[in-house]
Amino acid sequence: MKKELPACPVETTLTLISDRWKVLIIRDLLTGTKRFGELKKSLGSISQKVLTANLRAMEEIGLLTRKVYAEVPPRVEYTLTETGQSLKPILDSMYKWGEEYKAKNAS
Amino acid sequence: MKKELPACPVETTLTLISDRWKVLIIRDLLTGTKRFGELKKSLGSISQKVLTANLRAMEEIGLLTRKVYAEVPPRVEYTLTETGQSLKPILDSMYKWGEEYKAKNAS
Repeated sequence: MKKELPACPVETTLTLISDRWKVLIIRDLLTGTKRFGELKKSLGSISQKVLTANLRAMEEIGLLTRKVYAEVPPRVEYTLTETGQSLKPILDSMYKWGEEYKAKNAS
Repeated sequence: MKKELPACPVETTLTLISDRWKVLIIRDLLTGTKRFGELKKSLGSISQKVLTANLRAMEEIGLLTRKVYAEVPPRVEYTLTETGQSLKPILDSMYKWGEEYKAKNAS
């Protein structure tokens, strides 16, 4: 996929991962390879269709790889690429900020 | 405003700033106080209504303050709060990642 990316790098990152589900999928994959069913369970309210679409988009922009094992039933596993792994500092910052915000705004 | 925040801090941050416009507004305010018109111009395709709604939501969750000057025409300025300023590391990480992604994926 070759798409025109915004001039501002912050906007580029937003274009690629601004979707809430994508960030949560990255969070889940940062701890290691996961099966489709594991991701679906962890994300809770996501539909199979939406999860599939998000995973496909993330594969296209090079954030993760998909591996299908010829088993019955077939096993499908998702793993972050090096580019996907490199998002860790952003999620770490988000984790830290979310934690501090919650602490300050706790009743 | 008191709202139930998600258990996961990454999800908390997403709940508060996952919106593309909000992140770009923060980017613009990190360099200093801005008028409504300046923000609108910088954001390009945003409508007055959507920008107003985003600014109001960000004021409610304590990310920015709004100051109205009794001039003709009235001047309205927006400034990040300390909580808003504390999002800088997240945007810095996003900037850095976006820049690296663009460099790697340049044709």
